[in-house]
Amino acid sequence: MKNTKRAVYPGTFDPVTNGHLDILKRASLLFDEITVAVGKNPSKATLFSSGERLSLLKKSIAGMKFHCPVKIESFDGLIVDFARQKKINTLIRGLRAVSDFDYELQMALMNRKQVRNIETVFLMPDEKYIYLSSSLAKTIGRFKGNLKEFLPAPVVAALASKFRT
Amino acid sequence: MKNTKRAVYPGTFDPVTNGHLDILKRASLLFDEITVAVGKNPSKATLFSSGERLSLLKKSIAGMKFHCPVKIESFDGLIVDFARQKKINTLIRGLRAVSDFDYELQMALMNRKQVRNIETVFLMPDEKYIYLSSSLAKTIGRFKGNLKEFLPAPVVAALASKFRT
Amino acid sequence: MKNTKRAVYPGTFDPVTNGHLDILKRASLLFDEITVAVGKNPSKATLFSSGERLSLLKKSIAGMKFHCPVKIESFDGLIVDFARQKKINTLIRGLRAVSDFDYELQMALMNRKQVRNIETVFLMPDEKYIYLSSSLAKTIGRFKGNLKEFLPAPVVAALASKFRT
Amino acid sequence: MKNTKRAVYPGTFDPVTNGHLDILKRASLLFDEITVAVGKNPSKATLFSSGERLSLLKKSIAGMKFHCPVKIESFDGLIVDFARQKKINTLIRGLRAVSDFDYELQMALMNRKQVRNIETVFLMPDEKYIYLSSSLAKTIGRFKGNLKEFLPAPVVAALASKFRT
Amino acid sequence: MKNTKRAVYPGTFDPVTNGHLDILKRASLLFDEITVAVGKNPSKATLFSSGERLSLLKKSIAGMKFHCPVKIESFDGLIVDFARQKKINTLIRGLRAVSDFDYELQMALMNRKQVRNIETVFLMPDEKYIYLSSSLAKTIGRFKGNLKEFLPAPVVAALASKFRT
Amino acid sequence: MKNTKRAVYPGTFDPVTNGHLDILKRASLLFDEITVAVGKNPSKATLFSSGERLSLLKKSIAGMKFHCPVKIESFDGLIVDFARQKKINTLIRGLRAVSDFDYELQMALMNRKQVRNIETVFLMPDEKYIYLSSSLAKTIGRFKGNLKEFLPAPVVAALASKFRT
Repeated sequence: MKNTKRAVYPGTFDPVTNGHLDILKRASLLFDEITVAVGKNPSKATLFSSGERLSLLKKSIAGMKFHCPVKIESFDGLIVDFARQKKINTLIRGLRAVSDFDYELQMALMNRKQVRNIETVFLMPDEKYIYLSSSLAKTIGRFKGNLKEFLPAPVVAALASKFRT
Repeated sequence: MKNTKRAVYPGTFDPVTNGHLDILKRASLLFDEITVAVGKNPSKATLFSSGERLSLLKKSIAGMKFHCPVKIESFDGLIVDFARQKKINTLIRGLRAVSDFDYELQMALMNRKQVRNIETVFLMPDEKYIYLSSSLAKTIGRFKGNLKEFLPAPVVAALASKFRT
Repeated sequence: MKNTKRAVYPGTFDPVTNGHLDILKRASLLFDEITVAVGKNPSKATLFSSGERLSLLKKSIAGMKFHCPVKIESFDGLIVDFARQKKINTLIRGLRAVSDFDYELQMALMNRKQVRNIETVFLMPDEKYIYLSSSLAKTIGRFKGNLKEFLPAPVVAALASKFRT
Repeated sequence: MKNTKRAVYPGTFDPVTNGHLDILKRASLLFDEITVAVGKNPSKATLFSSGERLSLLKKSIAGMKFHCPVKIESFDGLIVDFARQKKINTLIRGLRAVSDFDYELQMALMNRKQVRNIETVFLMPDEKYIYLSSSLAKTIGRFKGNLKEFLPAPVVAALASKFRT
Repeated sequence: MKNTKRAVYPGTFDPVTNGHLDILKRASLLFDEITVAVGKNPSKATLFSSGERLSLLKKSIAGMKFHCPVKIESFDGLIVDFARQKKINTLIRGLRAVSDFDYELQMALMNRKQVRNIETVFLMPDEKYIYLSSSLAKTIGRFKGNLKEFLPAPVVAALASKFRT
Repeated sequence: MKNTKRAVYPGTFDPVTNGHLDILKRASLLFDEITVAVGKNPSKATLFSSGERLSLLKKSIAGMKFHCPVKIESFDGLIVDFARQKKINTLIRGLRAVSDFDYELQMALMNRKQVRNIETVFLMPDEKYIYLSSSLAKTIGRFKGNLKEFLPAPVVAALASKFRT
């Protein structure tokens, strides 16, 4: 009998993009249960509150099919403490461009030092999302650009509403 | 008969450096008309107002010779919308170090998604400007460093005036 | 009256990929005439002879529409000497990943030192070709992988023929 | 009931290093069965024959404990064809330095194009192996350097034997 | 008779980490006297005041043995002006990941332009500190993570005190 | 009384460039004696024999003034063994572009593992040499390009002679 493979997909998700959902879908083939963990305390200011970010994630995945159960929660503090409390040893992170790379390695190595046996698994999004980021989406959204290809519909609406003048 | 090749060189220009002017001069060999577009709404705070940045650019190129006409304007919103209104399909960007690279590719790919047929052309400055940036210039200027090799004379003066105590 | 904008797109093209053709198409919007220049003497061994590479390029663009005339020639020696003989001042290069970047900057800077006023213009391919290279295509071809999405039909056939056993 | 999570860890392993074994150990926490796949046909010449490389891998893991069964096989051709034949959808790759990164993304994206639903999972070795590579180990071995910290004992012996004069 | 080799090790040290101390220890083998220079005016806000940062550095090296005398001072303005006043021509900087690299080269080249003959010497920390930074340490500290391996004891205490709620 | 600061500057020098000599000159301000160490056994084939490379280095520095004595020797095997025999603890390496970076860190970390207390010191060349390499110089030389700005006169002559047909 196999033991259950559980993982956490942590992030700020300010807001969630199709790139995040693409990673989540790919990850759902690898694990038996995934918890998306929305950070309450990002070091920099967010456009959406943690409640809004959680809610947008929930709405965005409402109609999607995954290969394993997906839960969405928020967390406070270090992601490794959140994972440990849930008895989860695996973190999922997307890797896009080189500019992600150094930061992600730094975090993965530090997380291992914080909690033994915490492993970070990196996945690559579809190449059409390879240069997509939440912050780029916000910049485009601020100036009424077209984001339908890049953001879930509820996020497109929320962004339009945020930047309505 | 050839059609006219027009391009936009967008940026924040806070402030314009000799590296920008070097790119502009090189680009003037490739195009029949260039519009330098000064962004009014950069996502981060600027040292100089958009009026000051426009004025410094105008003063800085006053005595220069280019291989094609060069206009200077400011814009609000997305650069692709500005270009489309002017019926211009080409953006010019300088490429210096690797740290530029990811960001520039991200922007170029996203701009293509926003407006069909928008193409970004990357040029490389002279190697003596390869590690020059507006933000480094501001740091040096704040502490009364020597910037004559790196900034047009009107910008050297404006920076000195900003940081006079 | 505008002067004619001519450019050279140099490379080894061993073999030409859809990524190269994508760059060529984008470049044809920017110039009035483009010469694709196939290097006879690449520093490393090639799979296809320079005659084969030239012929594959010609066959590959046979049915394509460009926005300006495109000629295909081979060259020997330094590309800057070839360009100078043709009185062309502009080189076109594709930029894909960071691993290209250092090499391309090195070449562009050195080419400027060899011939005054030679400028290199970098374009970005469609993101679906952003991680495609001739050498990767050859590796896949050697093992009978599927390359229809990445190579022009005549190249797919030529590669299959090369690796027939 | 959970389905079995199987993965392939492909490579040239010329020779296997402690960095590879570290990745393998970490991966064994994530999967229910791992096949290490030794490529018979690397594009460049190898120091050890594919038989030697297979044998060194087997000897090296002989005394090790993994969290799931580990099999070692060799393969010919594309790794995605090997995986498909085994009905395995997941590839494991180690990510160390930036110089790995572009190549690994290129391969992962191309592999997805070759076989639908093939996913590549990237893991990071312990930081003490972060700058270790097989080729560096061979260079050190050629000149009788000390590799005990970096290579399994059977590989240290095999390398010494290869370079005995 | 040899002339005395003196160097400055500049930084923000907000706060000093074991990575900094590792660089300092290595540098002490190369020079006859080192001045650690704590910048009073970093362009971004600091967690610790310049007085606190100076004091933490002094406490942190109190029990350490170096191969040459080490002094700790604070400075205002450009580091090259500070160095020139002390008649020191050499700056020491640590190099960790690629993300440091572009910035460090930019600074080193600009510093040379500011003051003739100023040379920057780059050293690499132990690999266990290769992904450690002050800002990562602050993030971990904010959430009560474990930093004993990464920070001197006085800094661990000061950070705990800062983030006590 | 100060102890003598000695360093080794190792390389293949196939052939020596002005970039190498620039690094050597900068290093001569930092040390009391420098040994340039020409590797006899580079892993890849060289254009010039180790005798020729040694001789070209000697001729190239014949007329130069350094701030400390400079010796030129060849070595066989690992540079750390050469350094240890000479009781030298410091290696000098030039750092140019990002593509150097990973390799140099890898070597520096591995060298530390081979011999305790071996430290690598990285220096940056003048920006005009920042994209110069021996292999680029050979490519240009093969096609009779102009290298006077990049290579010492004896090397220009030797390269011309090598490629005379």
